Amino acid sequence: MTKFQITILGCGSAMPTTLHNPSSQLVDMNEKLFMIDCGEGTQLQMRKYKTRMSKLHSIFISHLHGDHVFGLPGLLSTLSLLGRTADLNLYAHQEMDLFLNPFIKYFGNQFSYKINLIPLDPHNHQLIFENNSMRVFSFPLKHRIATNGFLFEEKELPRHIKREMIDFYDIPFRQIKDIKLGADFITNDGKLIKNEILTTPSPPPRKYAYCSDTAFLPEIIPYIQNIDVLYHESTFAEADNVRAQETFHSTARQAAEIAKAANVKKLIIGHFSSRYNELDKLLNEATAVFSETKLATEGMIINL
Amino acid sequence: MTKFQITILGCGSAMPTTLHNPSSQLVDMNEKLFMIDCGEGTQLQMRKYKTRMSKLHSIFISHLHGDHVFGLPGLLSTLSLLGRTADLNLYAHQEMDLFLNPFIKYFGNQFSYKINLIPLDPHNHQLIFENNSMRVFSFPLKHRIATNGFLFEEKELPRHIKREMIDFYDIPFRQIKDIKLGADFITNDGKLIKNEILTTPSPPPRKYAYCSDTAFLPEIIPYIQNIDVLYHESTFAEADNVRAQETFHSTARQAAEIAKAANVKKLIIGHFSSRYNELDKLLNEATAVFSETKLATEGMIINL
Repeated sequence: MTKFQITILGCGSAMPTTLHNPSSQLVDMNEKLFMIDCGEGTQLQMRKYKTRMSKLHSIFISHLHGDHVFGLPGLLSTLSLLGRTADLNLYAHQEMDLFLNPFIKYFGNQFSYKINLIPLDPHNHQLIFENNSMRVFSFPLKHRIATNGFLFEEKELPRHIKREMIDFYDIPFRQIKDIKLGADFITNDGKLIKNEILTTPSPPPRKYAYCSDTAFLPEIIPYIQNIDVLYHESTFAEADNVRAQETFHSTARQAAEIAKAANVKKLIIGHFSSRYNELDKLLNEATAVFSETKLATEGMIINL
Repeated sequence: MTKFQITILGCGSAMPTTLHNPSSQLVDMNEKLFMIDCGEGTQLQMRKYKTRMSKLHSIFISHLHGDHVFGLPGLLSTLSLLGRTADLNLYAHQEMDLFLNPFIKYFGNQFSYKINLIPLDPHNHQLIFENNSMRVFSFPLKHRIATNGFLFEEKELPRHIKREMIDFYDIPFRQIKDIKLGADFITNDGKLIKNEILTTPSPPPRKYAYCSDTAFLPEIIPYIQNIDVLYHESTFAEADNVRAQETFHSTARQAAEIAKAANVKKLIIGHFSSRYNELDKLLNEATAVFSETKLATEGMIINL
């Protein structure tokens, strides 16, 4: 299987602590790095965890709060110092240009590459990126300002053709591609061999979703149904439920309820409030509802 | 003596490494923190080294390169999250407003405190801050863009009155302040007692200067003559002298020559290029010229 790997660079929230960095993570799909959010210090975290800046393909920003974007000026500058020439697509709310344009004007007018701001629709489920092997969707979350969740999914892979069937029916090379895509085979003496005899199904496409920051929002369930891994914010413990509601954040239990209702395989919780030194409580509250829960931590790697 | 302490938060240069953070340091004068430069991650470094954000008095920015300013959005936001109400003076080149205003407009319109941008004169030696006990001067350096060095100095302290003289001449309490400031004393029977008999001199005012980033610039020597501690950039080793000239930076030897010519007591070198994993070479090149040289390092504390 090709690589489909998440690296957590930061899973803290707005107030910095010595325990957690602000939000950022990398989705490595087949040696291309897709960054989600870019809090202050993200480029330093990339260095720390030895992720290669040359592999950075594009950046997806969930929303325009400082703890999700203040690492952009430094990272974008460093990419130029490194001599990047390929365009960089930055997916974010349209208002990103209010922050980005003055920065580019002053600091980036001699950048070695071009930054394309691609505005996200804050209201609708939307395909925002596609290549040969994958798709990225965005969908609305519910926070104090417009916020998007993201789904990264593999495209369906061709079926595996059985080696012994190629030999047994002497299947010509030129027909193999079609058979992998589902075609039947007709032998020289006119006999039809059904595709299911010749092939085995490919593994189901893997899917990863990022939902941060957001209040409890069951409306997202259709977009993340049955996925392999869900990263969902859980800023607060249940005891601070009122604060969660006021600030449009989720509790650990709420994150777990979303994971359970969406029938995901694994849940990673993150975006922890600085008020908690110990996160066991959050983990316990989540696992009580959905056992396959893990706490995010800086440097954590999740292979799908 | 009152506190006069420097904490190095970052002494790397433009390209981030796992060894060094970008430029920032704190001058603690009598429990007030004056920040010099604010590279990305500075607020995280403040947390790491347990310096108190509530003590932050003002910020001095040497020049508008990213590795000296990209920590500002995060730090300024956090001060508001912490509920600061006192104005914050930010001393920087006038063009700082091109970066700062869009940021404040978008992220800071509900800040709990006001930021005053105080433009620095990039051409002249200038008194920029003064209170009861100290002064801060700025002076021009020589870099690719307008850059200022800073001098922090104590004001002259009153002389120490000798306890035994107060008793011997029965000096009234109300005259003590004048005597500390240099007045003589006349006894009840009209005898004049010279101030030098009654007092001992206070220790000489302590002085600290920050010179980064700059090419070799002997013109700064009059501003930093005889000071206690000089922080001078030494981005390069002598072998990379050509690169130093091209980029308007200094070598370690040049920093030491400035320290020697200015007759400073101690030299701290910093702003190290990311090309050096080992800094012994830079230290050796500097100490060959000026023995009282130390390498800056993150978390280093210098007491004057």
